[in-house]
Amino acid sequence: MAQEKLRKEETLAMRNRLIGQSCRLFYSEDPVKIVRARGQYLFDENGKRYLDCISNVQHVGHCHPAITKAAAAQMDVLNTNSRFLHDNIVLYADRLAATLPQKLCVFYFVNSGSEANDLALRLARQYTQHEDVVVLDHAYHGHLMSLIDISPYKFRKLAGQKEWVHVAPLPDTYRGIYREDHPDPGQAYADTVKDLIEDVHKKGRKISAFFAESLPSVGGQIILPQEYFPKVAEYVRSAGGVFVADEVQTGFGRVGHHFWAFQLQGDDFCPDIVTMGKPMGNGHPLACVATTAEIAGAFTANGVEYFNTFGGTPVSCAIGLAVLDVIVEEDLRGNAVRVGAHLKDLLTKLKARHEIIGDVRGVGLFLGIELVTDREKKTPATEADQICVSTDGPWENVLKFKPPMCFGMENAELVVQLQKHLTLTLQIITERSMCNINQKFISTNLPKTLEE
Amino acid sequence: MAQEKLRKEETLAMRNRLIGQSCRLFYSEDPVKIVRARGQYLFDENGKRYLDCISNVQHVGHCHPAITKAAAAQMDVLNTNSRFLHDNIVLYADRLAATLPQKLCVFYFVNSGSEANDLALRLARQYTQHEDVVVLDHAYHGHLMSLIDISPYKFRKLAGQKEWVHVAPLPDTYRGIYREDHPDPGQAYADTVKDLIEDVHKKGRKISAFFAESLPSVGGQIILPQEYFPKVAEYVRSAGGVFVADEVQTGFGRVGHHFWAFQLQGDDFCPDIVTMGKPMGNGHPLACVATTAEIAGAFTANGVEYFNTFGGTPVSCAIGLAVLDVIVEEDLRGNAVRVGAHLKDLLTKLKARHEIIGDVRGVGLFLGIELVTDREKKTPATEADQICVSTDGPWENVLKFKPPMCFGMENAELVVQLQKHLTLTLQIITERSMCNINQKFISTNLPKTLEE
Repeated sequence: MAQEKLRKEETLAMRNRLIGQSCRLFYSEDPVKIVRARGQYLFDENGKRYLDCISNVQHVGHCHPAITKAAAAQMDVLNTNSRFLHDNIVLYADRLAATLPQKLCVFYFVNSGSEANDLALRLARQYTQHEDVVVLDHAYHGHLMSLIDISPYKFRKLAGQKEWVHVAPLPDTYRGIYREDHPDPGQAYADTVKDLIEDVHKKGRKISAFFAESLPSVGGQIILPQEYFPKVAEYVRSAGGVFVADEVQTGFGRVGHHFWAFQLQGDDFCPDIVTMGKPMGNGHPLACVATTAEIAGAFTANGVEYFNTFGGTPVSCAIGLAVLDVIVEEDLRGNAVRVGAHLKDLLTKLKARHEIIGDVRGVGLFLGIELVTDREKKTPATEADQICVSTDGPWENVLKFKPPMCFGMENAELVVQLQKHLTLTLQIITERSMCNINQKFISTNLPKTLEE
Repeated sequence: MAQEKLRKEETLAMRNRLIGQSCRLFYSEDPVKIVRARGQYLFDENGKRYLDCISNVQHVGHCHPAITKAAAAQMDVLNTNSRFLHDNIVLYADRLAATLPQKLCVFYFVNSGSEANDLALRLARQYTQHEDVVVLDHAYHGHLMSLIDISPYKFRKLAGQKEWVHVAPLPDTYRGIYREDHPDPGQAYADTVKDLIEDVHKKGRKISAFFAESLPSVGGQIILPQEYFPKVAEYVRSAGGVFVADEVQTGFGRVGHHFWAFQLQGDDFCPDIVTMGKPMGNGHPLACVATTAEIAGAFTANGVEYFNTFGGTPVSCAIGLAVLDVIVEEDLRGNAVRVGAHLKDLLTKLKARHEIIGDVRGVGLFLGIELVTDREKKTPATEADQICVSTDGPWENVLKFKPPMCFGMENAELVVQLQKHLTLTLQIITERSMCNINQKFISTNLPKTLEE
């Protein structure tokens, strides 16, 4: 195909030679070479089509023409840095502000969710003048040094836990310390944070921030119990800290009825800082920190400039604006509600027939299926790679779905059909990740002519 | 103009309200609104043209059509993450490898120079299993928390110096501790690093890395004395550390005869890690770490994945490849040699007539003019804003030039002419930065029709 410049073996040999191996290929024993994509479909070098269940970055669909058009048009006109006055950055910030509680009205544009979380940590510390951070168990907030420190998922394998980091239990009502049968798991889990803060104070230390994904993703596609965030925010603020909602994976309407996943915790709940990233530029490196005027003011008041070379350029913001337009024009939030509910319903029906499915959970197009070998004991079915691969959660036994938002009803049905048959009639890619790769997808032999 | 969606006052009001003020606007008392750009020229909302002397990011010229075309073509086909096998990333790594010493053969693609330097620090520590870092005085390596720690330019204003950071004197032969009259300033400055390492060892600490820009930029557009890097590398490696060359500002042919500025230190000199960023994507968020197979191997061996969501996507790499093509096709390195030499020559002649010019230095299109009120005492002329504003260096008295690489002979002459006249006949924007903004440019009243 025209999109292929090298034979696959040659690409693979060059990859192994030239690219750092710390980033593993998908299906590293027999890597897939994808040469083009459109909507929710990927195509390999032989034209074989794959249904993409995991690319949450390509939020409005792979290679959406409206995004390409907006990017190319702005690239042709201007792409300076954000020290120049420009309309795009302010129009984009204004549009984002309209999706958020009024209090979150100041924006910093950066290039990745990791840069956003690093800046959020700086903002929290500058504002509170405290150092310590509370995070959820199994959390992952990014690849930078500062973020490995606040990511139990990473620091347990690396440098270990810093004295200023405190890990609260993951509020997982399926297999956590408080479960479905608890009368008020939101309050109970929030109390664990309250207790942790008291311990921190006894050590003479002070809390700068509580960091959490609005729906813990690496933690296992967890839906938090109601009232957890508002209660935690109350305790954290009482301790002089701020509440940081990491929406890098979950924002921009993925959960359907709400634009942000933290809004699932009630209309009155408002974080002090929200970080966003992956879906924001549909693949373009674009991320952001939103915060209050007070926190931003404290950061400005230190008198030291924060400048991000590529953050908030006219091109990045043109792309960001185009993504917001497509979400509205194609009613992708409505689609997430409808298709997500249908898929969840189909999976729940599947659960009735298959003992291995311990739990089906999620909201909108953010879904998880937890596989177990024993429903009573909830033993993680880590090696159950006949259905599909365990892909997330502490035991890597949570199969997750976070497809492009244009995922359709027929796609949902195909996924369930594939799993229902538990056969290899339709090829299911099932290689187990060697190093905690969190994403898998399903390949089908559907005729490639279906696409366009 | 069509490119303007809001009146300037409205843009400014929204900017002040919505965007974090820690990123200051250029000329904040009367900000310039730029709505389009091409080559080395910027245009404001009234069509007024500005000659851009400082945008080193837009390396091959603003809005180069070949870059836009390459980006749009790839955006239309595929833009997945680098866990999928793809030709662009390996072809791009291969092209970069051809510009570097053979030893630097493994690449990690990221989204900003800051992300690159953060990763370089991780690589150095993982490989050496040491913690401490030696940096040059006045250095700036990025905005992330880990990099503020190794940037004296920032940490002196913020959290202060960490116990694992050690600051070596800036090898500035104009106003440093060893000057032009020293018989061997390269050796003398390298010895300061040797002494520093000995002090570190006496404290029972160990060196992981020496970090330096190949031409210190925030430090004042410094050209390092010969033999400095090779000698320092010898001492650092003897201590079990690695040598990191930060080429974020200086790479990709800006210095003309060499593709990388570290190559000014001799053909035999090879760093252990090279970081690159700003000019790499001509404005697209693209950066990279190049290192040896040994260092990359140690990083892989820890078994923990490093995954960068947007790093090395097919679009980023297509843009990177197009930038490399334009550098060659338009002989921009040759242009940097010719125009840079001509500009330096004109500025040197200017120096003969103006006492305020203490030093003219630089190589290729990376030039600095150091302004002084007394040539003997080298008193920094910090407030000499009649010529232009001091823009870099510890005393902000170094006027710097790092224009797009298509900067022409006539542009060089215009710059000098403007400075020679020391008048306001042609408008010279001279506002002094409030917070160490490092970049200024010169506005002219040249007819806008000159462009295209």
